[in-house]
Amino acid sequence: MDAKTIKGGGVTSPLGFQATGVACGIKPRGEKDLALVVSDVPAEVAATFTTNLVKAAPVKVSMQHVRNGKIRGVVVNAGCANACTGIGGIADAKEMIEIVAGQFKTKPRQWLVCSTGRIGNRLPMALVRKGIEKAAAKISPDDGDEAAKAIMTTDTRRKEFAMRFKVNGRKVTIGGMAKGAGMIHPNMATMLCVITTDACIDKPTLRACVDDAVEHSFNRISVDGDTSTNDTVIVLANGLSGTNLLKSYHPQFGLFKKTLVHVMRKLARMIVEDGEGITRVVDVVVKGAASTQDARLVALAVAKSELIKTSWTGGDPNWGRIMAALGYSGARVREEMVEIYYDGLLAVVNGQPSKTPVAKLRKLVGKPKFTITIHLHTGAGEYSILTTDLTEEYVRINKGE
Amino acid sequence: MDAKTIKGGGVTSPLGFQATGVACGIKPRGEKDLALVVSDVPAEVAATFTTNLVKAAPVKVSMQHVRNGKIRGVVVNAGCANACTGIGGIADAKEMIEIVAGQFKTKPRQWLVCSTGRIGNRLPMALVRKGIEKAAAKISPDDGDEAAKAIMTTDTRRKEFAMRFKVNGRKVTIGGMAKGAGMIHPNMATMLCVITTDACIDKPTLRACVDDAVEHSFNRISVDGDTSTNDTVIVLANGLSGTNLLKSYHPQFGLFKKTLVHVMRKLARMIVEDGEGITRVVDVVVKGAASTQDARLVALAVAKSELIKTSWTGGDPNWGRIMAALGYSGARVREEMVEIYYDGLLAVVNGQPSKTPVAKLRKLVGKPKFTITIHLHTGAGEYSILTTDLTEEYVRINKGE
Repeated sequence: MDAKTIKGGGVTSPLGFQATGVACGIKPRGEKDLALVVSDVPAEVAATFTTNLVKAAPVKVSMQHVRNGKIRGVVVNAGCANACTGIGGIADAKEMIEIVAGQFKTKPRQWLVCSTGRIGNRLPMALVRKGIEKAAAKISPDDGDEAAKAIMTTDTRRKEFAMRFKVNGRKVTIGGMAKGAGMIHPNMATMLCVITTDACIDKPTLRACVDDAVEHSFNRISVDGDTSTNDTVIVLANGLSGTNLLKSYHPQFGLFKKTLVHVMRKLARMIVEDGEGITRVVDVVVKGAASTQDARLVALAVAKSELIKTSWTGGDPNWGRIMAALGYSGARVREEMVEIYYDGLLAVVNGQPSKTPVAKLRKLVGKPKFTITIHLHTGAGEYSILTTDLTEEYVRINKGE
Repeated sequence: MDAKTIKGGGVTSPLGFQATGVACGIKPRGEKDLALVVSDVPAEVAATFTTNLVKAAPVKVSMQHVRNGKIRGVVVNAGCANACTGIGGIADAKEMIEIVAGQFKTKPRQWLVCSTGRIGNRLPMALVRKGIEKAAAKISPDDGDEAAKAIMTTDTRRKEFAMRFKVNGRKVTIGGMAKGAGMIHPNMATMLCVITTDACIDKPTLRACVDDAVEHSFNRISVDGDTSTNDTVIVLANGLSGTNLLKSYHPQFGLFKKTLVHVMRKLARMIVEDGEGITRVVDVVVKGAASTQDARLVALAVAKSELIKTSWTGGDPNWGRIMAALGYSGARVREEMVEIYYDGLLAVVNGQPSKTPVAKLRKLVGKPKFTITIHLHTGAGEYSILTTDLTEEYVRINKGE
């Protein structure tokens, strides 16, 4: 009775959602750079935005519109973040919403807007206007993948995922698309994510589910430790599956929640796996901390350490650098209690090297994916973060524009 | 009447200090790896150690000995950090001290010990014993540079500096040596620093001067954001200049303090300039923050951002990434108030791009040294950090062992 993955699914997998992506000329080489996701009927909305105090104009505008009421859709551009653009940038973000609202003969407050790309540049609004008009004319219930393509920046591949489950014999679907690549860090990444569902759910319940799901997915990934100005996760629920209203006492409510977390975690993992220049994806699992907060501090310190991440790149099981990171993490750590495992293989016991041959550990760190488990033996706090190595290629990608 | 730099000066520049460096076989290629700095008479001592909770064995032992009373000298090995080595490692550190104390027929508690190198390996004590014996036999008042060479790890050059000033007609000298290169971050770096002086000063006064000087030098540099298990700054004052006791009411006390800060800042800058794989040295100066703490948060966020540091490597004046870092730094930042200058050239005003041509900014970021000044216009808090870029070469150096 669990949810099933829909092969090739995305934002248009749920009933009553249409999408597309077009090239409007923001990206210099004519790639797609403008996406539209539209619900046939007004949808309940819940969203999470960057915690960065320097918020892009579209974030400021969308934060306001999320409070308004139901939402018809989202317009997204890539290639320009519309951040640090002052009141002119705010006007541009509002104009994007007015253009799309006009196309669908709806009120502007029923729309959300996202931007991603370089900070500090204004949008070429004449091109954007044409792009939105073109997209509005060609949206289709089959073109979720076009939208997923149009929101990419340094991503090397589309990130889409969808799952379906049954509530009282009726199908309920959750689909999503995301972009990531650089500036990826908890709370949150330079990441945009739009999730659609035909589930029938009220706003407060959806809000609670989304907060929880983001906390267990997008807030637990880190590529480079930089929290961006534009991060946005939007969830639209249009209710067209026709089930009863999903409330917390509903027998299938747990399945909805679980599936939403699963979809977000899947998209979050795709973001990490497509991190700029990476060669390793590493689950950092912290157990036995004095508190969840302590476990989080340790996981973050490891996921942010340039020295640890470069050692992974070289396939070096350099647990000494992990010990050092534990010590400066701010968490309560007792060196002589610490155990560190690489994929279940004991590397450190009582804060000292185990008897496991280094060659065995080296082989594990040579793999593209592995898990590092750190047991502090000081309590029951747990936390995990999905992160990557730090490569010469990352530097190469980010040293240019 | 200011202090003058002593050309080629170092730890043996002050009266009554001898030093040397030898190769005992810890480093695989036969380079010097053991240093000894000895005062002819017991010296007052003040020291600062890593804030990392995972402290190397020599740090634990030296912390105890600093409390004891006067100190005759310091033995330092490079190539092995003697960290995460349990009670065996503590025994090794103590044995190093016993060996050197025996050589000079003094009590073990009159000695300090430092180690630097890879974490998790035990010291080859038989080799270390021979090395200490060899060093004790050949110390000389001229061989400060030998000691400075022996403490290097991935450093590409020796770091030594000395200054001299006059107190009531008598010469007072402060000399020092340091090593750095990787794991460089406030509180503190994988850095060792030994400073010697023939100033006549009591322990509490010296302690206060050293705390203050470290705060304004070694605590304000960052290469890669990793605080190590072994960081140590030791200052020995043997009083052999023969001046009056320097107390805070002494007319020349300010000059002593100022010179100590100057020596430490000089050594700190040498550490940053010799950072692993770096091509840029950047002064990050934050002004007008709501508090000193806020200024510090902003300076640290900029100095730790992989995205900002890689953009410098590429000569890209990507102030957008700086704006993003301000926003997630935790400091109180009002986007519309922010000004950012590159070497005095206005790049951002009111949180938006200035009219300065990008080509001009690009030229500045192309230089090996520049200053980024961030004015928050929310208060009077100031802080600065000396940092570097993040290069492919840094990754290359750290991905191996």
